[in-house]
Amino acid sequence: MTTTLDTAAVPLTIDDATADLLFREARTVKRFTDEEVTDEHIAAAYDLMRWGPTSMNISPLRYLVVRGTEAKDRLCAYTMEGNHAGIHAAPLTLVLAADLDFHVHMDRLAPHAPGIGDHFASQPALADSMGRMNATLQAGYFITALRAAGLQVGPMGISDAEGLDADLFAGTAWKSLFIVNVGHAVADVEGATHPRAARLESHEVSRVL
Amino acid sequence: MTTTLDTAAVPLTIDDATADLLFREARTVKRFTDEEVTDEHIAAAYDLMRWGPTSMNISPLRYLVVRGTEAKDRLCAYTMEGNHAGIHAAPLTLVLAADLDFHVHMDRLAPHAPGIGDHFASQPALADSMGRMNATLQAGYFITALRAAGLQVGPMGISDAEGLDADLFAGTAWKSLFIVNVGHAVADVEGATHPRAARLESHEVSRVL
Repeated sequence: MTTTLDTAAVPLTIDDATADLLFREARTVKRFTDEEVTDEHIAAAYDLMRWGPTSMNISPLRYLVVRGTEAKDRLCAYTMEGNHAGIHAAPLTLVLAADLDFHVHMDRLAPHAPGIGDHFASQPALADSMGRMNATLQAGYFITALRAAGLQVGPMGISDAEGLDADLFAGTAWKSLFIVNVGHAVADVEGATHPRAARLESHEVSRVL
Repeated sequence: MTTTLDTAAVPLTIDDATADLLFREARTVKRFTDEEVTDEHIAAAYDLMRWGPTSMNISPLRYLVVRGTEAKDRLCAYTMEGNHAGIHAAPLTLVLAADLDFHVHMDRLAPHAPGIGDHFASQPALADSMGRMNATLQAGYFITALRAAGLQVGPMGISDAEGLDADLFAGTAWKSLFIVNVGHAVADVEGATHPRAARLESHEVSRVL
């Protein structure tokens, strides 16, 4: 594929407003209103995203809900200083993580594959790579689902993931991936979002075998 | 969060039919109709998913389109034998990959961060981890976008990713992640999908700091 394909003629199954909401007009948000985001609101997004496919249905994504100055300060210790103001400005910040002990749930998640939990338990390197990859895939579903639930997001990296895990996830096998500020965007205010950055065209990112 | 949260009262911004299409009723598909899937159709899904956020907008996801017996046979050499019939039965199979040379596009993708491309070019370990993580995140957007474009998907693992990369991605820095069979599901036929597997409840996957 070396030329731009005409995709305008392809009918989408979702309507234009939804395509804009979830994808085309969705923006990374830096400034949020004071409106609260409840645990139920996040759980509603989770209840959508959890149906997305993972390898063997291992479903390793986990999330930590961080609210309030004290908890935010504790989180900020593991992020770049340039992100601290943004974390504090959001009504809620999620730490997305992969649970490398996902094997404990496999009897329920994959009853069609008896013993698969023990298989993962006995192969920690496999559990590590599959857990992180599938949780990251689920993070893509989650970001889309948060938007479907009417929330806006601002993802940010973690500068000291090992330190965060040792502190906030002590006693678990949760391994942090990245954080997501969540809330409602300040409308039409300069600085609420970054300027829109370009994306690559389909012919630049694809080949045909 | 140790109890089930009442999410039924949380209004979604998308309608119920769309929530079912993209998430709640979407299923991993094993058997497809013969209906062709065009490059334009895949590009239409790409044109949606490409707007999803990535770190510094690095946008490393790439995809290889595989059609026809000869190309499918070449791909199957790098997948488990149990998956070969499914790969051949799909009208089209995508190989999703991370381009670890994403730095070459950074002047266009991140004009607000001059020199960031050179930064990534000089740190291959960082480019590897960021490229794979962000491409996997984009794969989550892509699976959702393929469904939004009216297609059904069946993701599968790759058993010999290094071999695949050396063969199908020779001369590039593309690193394969997993494959996705794409097409239209056979309606109401036993075996078209797996039995629906359970998912974890929000209180089982979350904590509050």
